[in-house]
Amino acid sequence: MSWPGIIEAYRRFLPVSDQTPIITLGEGGTPLLPAPRLAAAIGAKIDLYLKYEGVNPTGSFKDRGMTLAITKAKEEGAEKVICASTGNTSAAAAAYSVRGGMKAYVLIPKGKIALGKLAQAMMHRATILQVQGNFDEALALVTDVSKTYPITLVNSINPYRLQGQKTGAFEVCDDLSEAPTHHFLPVGNAGNITAYWMGYTEYLKEGKITHLPKMMGFQAAGSAPIVLGKIVKHPKTIATAIRIGNPASWKNAELAALESQGKIDMVTDEEIITAYRMIAGLEGIFCEPASAAGVAGVIKLHKRDYFKKGDRVVCTLTGHGLKDADFSLKTSIKETTMVKSKEDLLKSLGF
Amino acid sequence: MSWPGIIEAYRRFLPVSDQTPIITLGEGGTPLLPAPRLAAAIGAKIDLYLKYEGVNPTGSFKDRGMTLAITKAKEEGAEKVICASTGNTSAAAAAYSVRGGMKAYVLIPKGKIALGKLAQAMMHRATILQVQGNFDEALALVTDVSKTYPITLVNSINPYRLQGQKTGAFEVCDDLSEAPTHHFLPVGNAGNITAYWMGYTEYLKEGKITHLPKMMGFQAAGSAPIVLGKIVKHPKTIATAIRIGNPASWKNAELAALESQGKIDMVTDEEIITAYRMIAGLEGIFCEPASAAGVAGVIKLHKRDYFKKGDRVVCTLTGHGLKDADFSLKTSIKETTMVKSKEDLLKSLGF
Repeated sequence: MSWPGIIEAYRRFLPVSDQTPIITLGEGGTPLLPAPRLAAAIGAKIDLYLKYEGVNPTGSFKDRGMTLAITKAKEEGAEKVICASTGNTSAAAAAYSVRGGMKAYVLIPKGKIALGKLAQAMMHRATILQVQGNFDEALALVTDVSKTYPITLVNSINPYRLQGQKTGAFEVCDDLSEAPTHHFLPVGNAGNITAYWMGYTEYLKEGKITHLPKMMGFQAAGSAPIVLGKIVKHPKTIATAIRIGNPASWKNAELAALESQGKIDMVTDEEIITAYRMIAGLEGIFCEPASAAGVAGVIKLHKRDYFKKGDRVVCTLTGHGLKDADFSLKTSIKETTMVKSKEDLLKSLGF
Repeated sequence: MSWPGIIEAYRRFLPVSDQTPIITLGEGGTPLLPAPRLAAAIGAKIDLYLKYEGVNPTGSFKDRGMTLAITKAKEEGAEKVICASTGNTSAAAAAYSVRGGMKAYVLIPKGKIALGKLAQAMMHRATILQVQGNFDEALALVTDVSKTYPITLVNSINPYRLQGQKTGAFEVCDDLSEAPTHHFLPVGNAGNITAYWMGYTEYLKEGKITHLPKMMGFQAAGSAPIVLGKIVKHPKTIATAIRIGNPASWKNAELAALESQGKIDMVTDEEIITAYRMIAGLEGIFCEPASAAGVAGVIKLHKRDYFKKGDRVVCTLTGHGLKDADFSLKTSIKETTMVKSKEDLLKSLGF
């Protein structure tokens, strides 16, 4: 029997009943892949694992939260859902909405559109609405409207999103039969680190694990409000999925780091790109640039002698590299060799 | 415990031993999704399921065959692998090669490169070699070289590829606890229909199912050598993944259709695009254009009153839509509405 999606898999831990109409695309159940070549290249004597969230249906971890948010919207009788997003959230919201027979609306700041990022939302028949002002203003507008009209907001302030996302931690523990010592992940809106921490603490309470991991969140240096302790008005980073200047789950992320004796730190775009290329080039796993922030954090901390031998380190890779294939082409060596004869070919192959 | 990849999941049916070093990225275990909205839109009173192969690690069904081909190459001591490919095969070959610590070489016909299609191979550090001549000549060259030099050919003439791919049929049967009545899928090189048929017949022999499905393969009309009964010198279709004029598994595909009382038929590009948009717009599943050929076949045959009530129809969606997001943008309605005020927004939302 193949994986039934996160709600069926972890029903007991989620706010659903036997009557809840489950809207699923088979999300979750993603592989936790050992990464010995990457660990060796870093030089760290740790057990390193990559949680590859790129193989979710819409290509990112957002599906975990969206299956629950849309399921609950359906249960409550919603016919319309709305979000402000230019990226992975809009793709997930649109896909799960049509799956549930609902209509999705996506608000984006005027002029700031890369159509490629909206390809999925458009294929899934979401209506794209451009609004004056920046992302925060778009979010304020959809929040306002969803309070008084029959339309469900599925941005991350929807509490079901984090409830769904916490299942990532369950899967890690189920695969390892214990919690790791450290969990590294990118921090943008800070919802995922909050959700993983929630998942780990629930599993500890249930006696499924005997200790909690240190939660290690990494922001991009040009977009690091939590590290800097202040809102970043014009966040800058090539890691678009974590280009957020005022994270919705700011306080909870800080709490997760504090309670777990972990940290929220930052890495430069160069460090992110290096990690991104190492993951693909050494382990065969293609992730989004932003996804590599956690691994970049491992590299940074290893240089400071942070790890102890035998540490068991999990990094969440939040999205698939195909989400931003254009970026990969920019950073790839585009060199191709012309081969004019069989002799030429043999030479190129080293024979 | 999450899905361990197809070799561990179906070890008993595959040519591996306890000593075989398994190279896996957690491929397979893909969802079989009921598609009631799509069936209703088509107007067919059938149980329709979509086998979503886009959620494999490199985004296509090729991973099933490649995990086994690369695993066997590793077992046999190979350090280099080679393939002729401009698409999904090169992505899978490159990813699994680095995962196994091997070096991949990808031959492509000179000048015929869309770099985007090679983004994955490049990220996974394959060496790209351009050769004079067309795809068939490139394939002939790599076949020749792999016969006399220590480099493993992983094109579909590598027999382990189909052995791995047959696990798709196992998963369908395991999920349904029986075989479907019909299995629809796109036909390009014709390996997948051959492999699924192999899987179904093996499962019947094992007593895991009580009947075999009709195998229904669909080529693109501009690239339909099997249907036309002759090689197509210059195959044309927007469905690039099945743009093949001289399929490697031609005879076996015909045999699968004949033995199962199914058929090999064709659909136009227009029919493919219609199906592609319906799948994304009604079920929330984003696939490659070529992937939609099977569903286009269902639509075509329904118009001819082919189905009986209660038929249980599975369509394999071979790859993720993110593989060719640019194409989706071309076919999407790129209309976005400008919203200048809250009143404007409410109007757009229908309130």
